[in-house]
Amino acid sequence: MIEPTAMRIGQGFDAHRFAESGTHRPLWLACLRWTDDEHRGVEGIDGDSDGDVAVHAVIDAVLSACGLGDIGSMFGVGADSSGAGMHGDHMLHMVRDRVQHGGWRIVNVSVSIIGNAPRIGRRREEACRAMTEALGAPVTIVATTTDGMGFTGRGEGIAAIATALAMPFASSPSAD
Amino acid sequence: MIEPTAMRIGQGFDAHRFAESGTHRPLWLACLRWTDDEHRGVEGIDGDSDGDVAVHAVIDAVLSACGLGDIGSMFGVGADSSGAGMHGDHMLHMVRDRVQHGGWRIVNVSVSIIGNAPRIGRRREEACRAMTEALGAPVTIVATTTDGMGFTGRGEGIAAIATALAMPFASSPSAD
Amino acid sequence: MIEPTAMRIGQGFDAHRFAESGTHRPLWLACLRWTDDEHRGVEGIDGDSDGDVAVHAVIDAVLSACGLGDIGSMFGVGADSSGAGMHGDHMLHMVRDRVQHGGWRIVNVSVSIIGNAPRIGRRREEACRAMTEALGAPVTIVATTTDGMGFTGRGEGIAAIATALAMPFASSPSAD
Repeated sequence: MIEPTAMRIGQGFDAHRFAESGTHRPLWLACLRWTDDEHRGVEGIDGDSDGDVAVHAVIDAVLSACGLGDIGSMFGVGADSSGAGMHGDHMLHMVRDRVQHGGWRIVNVSVSIIGNAPRIGRRREEACRAMTEALGAPVTIVATTTDGMGFTGRGEGIAAIATALAMPFASSPSAD
Repeated sequence: MIEPTAMRIGQGFDAHRFAESGTHRPLWLACLRWTDDEHRGVEGIDGDSDGDVAVHAVIDAVLSACGLGDIGSMFGVGADSSGAGMHGDHMLHMVRDRVQHGGWRIVNVSVSIIGNAPRIGRRREEACRAMTEALGAPVTIVATTTDGMGFTGRGEGIAAIATALAMPFASSPSAD
Repeated sequence: MIEPTAMRIGQGFDAHRFAESGTHRPLWLACLRWTDDEHRGVEGIDGDSDGDVAVHAVIDAVLSACGLGDIGSMFGVGADSSGAGMHGDHMLHMVRDRVQHGGWRIVNVSVSIIGNAPRIGRRREEACRAMTEALGAPVTIVATTTDGMGFTGRGEGIAAIATALAMPFASSPSAD
């Protein structure tokens, strides 16, 4: 059995703008493509990758728990980053490999999505499954708004806060 | 003994506006009713329930840790939700039942309250006890401000971030 | 072996303003002094202590996990607090003592720093080492921006979200 003291917690956060009106940028969030009807008036999320804030917050939480840097140190920053143009599920796959090669196992991850749109509720379970499959560990999602306040409340963008639990592989093999 | 790998972490967030000046809405936060003197110029918190952001963030963190949905899927959203008019301690009681029936045990929950008012300090321990009793698991509270910045700094509303730790009941019974 | 059910999670948050332009206040963050070149146009962070939001969020997360109050109850609030003028590493040392005397062991802490400046990336590992040494337990750091949105995006200030994992010393000594 693994010693509880070998467990590690990780924290991640990310926020991105919605693209400017009229750009017809597709909206990717939590490893799902959201239909135009689900946009509720917003465009897709800006960003060098697909702008998937839920994925980015989860990656930072996971890497931080495992002491493996952060999304910037792994993928680079800006338009010439290796994450440029990459979708969230691909990034999660790469993180899953990195974590495993580093000797870590992800126990689970939980992420809060904060924004007016899209409405997560109806597709929440589908989003959990998509992120869980891509990361190879349970991901659960909750979603809320800021009641019209701040940058998420004004519909300028969307944010996500994530926490992760991880432990080393067989750090303390049972003697039994 | 329960395997550490059976543990689950959860993340929650919520934000609500203070009611408009002159509405004399009572201020409920962290399962406590705050006196007029403690309001420090703000009204009670708006919301279909009593607007208790600390409770709502805790509920999302707990449900997410246990993979049991979120506050919206459990109580509904808006004025016709089952949580409408419900106080935080009642909601926490219902979550406690839901979690237990789902086969989960809450290890503990921690919540950060972010806002100018009320001042939590003097009643922090009382608030921890009230939330702990309602949830049936240890809840600890910290409180801070945003130094006059953003929607909490301008006194428009109040926010809370919570993390929870949970584990299944007797998932891995000790052989001893 | 310690029972997993003895583990406790903690949550912390803090935000501070950058000092007004022209004050030439030194910038302390994550237990490091950042050079003028690294300021990227901002002043140091305001606050009664050195304004180190990463340290403050970590302290709240740790104290909350251990059920030992919060940074306000430990150091006081405002210019006459015992933390006034104190640097982050000194505060972390005091928290380390308080936690140990309370019978707790910090498993690890993870903190997300949210702001435009300084750029954490190049000194991230150095900052992790400095915080880890001061706290006597592993601290990992991730850093991000809010894409120009909100008070951190406008460069008014900087914020940090932290989570901590702790457990009591020898709460359940192994029988082996």
